[in-house]
Amino acid sequence: MQKMLMDVDTGIDDALAIAYATSLPHVELVGITTTYGMAPVEYSYRNTCKVLEYAGADVPVRKGAEKPLQRSRTYSGRIHGTDGMGNTLGPVKDMVSTQPAVDFMIEQIYQYKSELTIVATAPLTNLALAIAKAPEIVDMVGRVVIMGGAVMTPGNVTKFAEANIIIDPEAANIVFGSTLPITMVGLDVTRKTLLTTRDVERWKEKDDKLGKSLAPCTQFYLDAYKELHPYLQGCALHDPLAVGVAAYPDLVQTVPMFIRVDLEEDALGRTTEDLYREGSAQPNTKVCVQVDADRFMKDFFHRIG
Amino acid sequence: MQKMLMDVDTGIDDALAIAYATSLPHVELVGITTTYGMAPVEYSYRNTCKVLEYAGADVPVRKGAEKPLQRSRTYSGRIHGTDGMGNTLGPVKDMVSTQPAVDFMIEQIYQYKSELTIVATAPLTNLALAIAKAPEIVDMVGRVVIMGGAVMTPGNVTKFAEANIIIDPEAANIVFGSTLPITMVGLDVTRKTLLTTRDVERWKEKDDKLGKSLAPCTQFYLDAYKELHPYLQGCALHDPLAVGVAAYPDLVQTVPMFIRVDLEEDALGRTTEDLYREGSAQPNTKVCVQVDADRFMKDFFHRIG
Repeated sequence: MQKMLMDVDTGIDDALAIAYATSLPHVELVGITTTYGMAPVEYSYRNTCKVLEYAGADVPVRKGAEKPLQRSRTYSGRIHGTDGMGNTLGPVKDMVSTQPAVDFMIEQIYQYKSELTIVATAPLTNLALAIAKAPEIVDMVGRVVIMGGAVMTPGNVTKFAEANIIIDPEAANIVFGSTLPITMVGLDVTRKTLLTTRDVERWKEKDDKLGKSLAPCTQFYLDAYKELHPYLQGCALHDPLAVGVAAYPDLVQTVPMFIRVDLEEDALGRTTEDLYREGSAQPNTKVCVQVDADRFMKDFFHRIG
Repeated sequence: MQKMLMDVDTGIDDALAIAYATSLPHVELVGITTTYGMAPVEYSYRNTCKVLEYAGADVPVRKGAEKPLQRSRTYSGRIHGTDGMGNTLGPVKDMVSTQPAVDFMIEQIYQYKSELTIVATAPLTNLALAIAKAPEIVDMVGRVVIMGGAVMTPGNVTKFAEANIIIDPEAANIVFGSTLPITMVGLDVTRKTLLTTRDVERWKEKDDKLGKSLAPCTQFYLDAYKELHPYLQGCALHDPLAVGVAAYPDLVQTVPMFIRVDLEEDALGRTTEDLYREGSAQPNTKVCVQVDADRFMKDFFHRIG
């Protein structure tokens, strides 16, 4: 069994990613840490618990960072709704544990060490805080699969930057600048795995609790994509693909590289090769540059709905 | 025999690329078109003839564009010297033919069609002018290998742009925006093929006319790199690698993509994925993302000196 810890800001595609992760027979989801991102952390925590309830999965959830390391955060609600789920969810159970996400994350790394894969599909604040608190974890954890950044393709917030990176660029720079063994699942590949209206219609028709529950918020996400990213033929399965890459590494072709996050205002959050680290050691990041989208989409729809 | 036409702005690494091309037993260099770039076209024309003389190669050379399509060009001389060759060359023979480069290029494409590979290691003005004059050539020529751009790595003129692209971004946009079958050899791979002081010292020691002739200007180039790009452990063999990729396509791993050249001032000359063409047809550009640098360097030094 592959031990997986997810760090999320649920978020519609995070919800799909969590549902997907719980469905994979060779993956054991050992916990989920949550953070602000597409919505405040109270919502992403609630949404995460709700998705696990839909999926019938008993997984520990912890509440994490409420804001970026150095910046403020406002929420437009344009892509994920003001509550992060297209305003489609009802109330959920109260919080079970008050343990901070960062402590839980460090604890899990100590428990599973190189067997643990962290899949981070949110701003990287929790991970940066964990590194600050326990720097030794960077050489203990097996792998960190990050949905974030855009290397060969334009960003989705600015023409330079992807959302998870630009929301907390200082945190992202700490994470990429560490020696963590990272696999970077950026827009370069996630824009190739698109979910369409037809897929959501199929979920609505089927008598599958999980698919049916996720259909309304996914429809919200699709509609937002149509308006904001009209050049795409659907909505990108950013976060589910990160889970897919964690579970099936051979889904993607990667290029080994050091990545630097631009902290200057003229290209804030841009992710490019770090020329100054190049040549000093083995690059710590595998950048995904191509994906077998058909194979991934087939598995995703086979597992969900 | 592979038919090759080079389009150059010789330029020190162009000189090395021409020397390399003439040395390849399975390549027939059918002609060279020249353009402004690192120095005015009079110099790049002269330098090209001189390198061919050193190499003992009888190849037709034509003089092409004197300036970018819409912009002006000034020359700093910092990397290649004011004459493009580190001010190391003596006088050369007069011009033999007055046929414009663009006409020669179109003529060669008509003659060799899909058998012809164009290797462009200069601003893309000549190629853009050829497309404007004879648009049908884009579907006739076999392959166009372009040394230009930076997709995953920062530029070398600005943090966004590589020199050959930013000098004439409008021309580059015409070329990449066409249906030409392009292989893009950008800084992503050329920065991995580095020539060092030790390599130049070996040339100086050996009794090889070509290596000996090229040593002084290469030393100038190396010294400029040390000052301007101190993070690299040598000087990049940009243009020779383009010849290498043309001659040995399996030297590199590529990702199929549509490329767009940014024409906005905030990222002028940046080369990224063109999201608006994506999905409409088979991408026309193979972007090189990894190179077998050892194999290339071995062949390069085996052929030269």
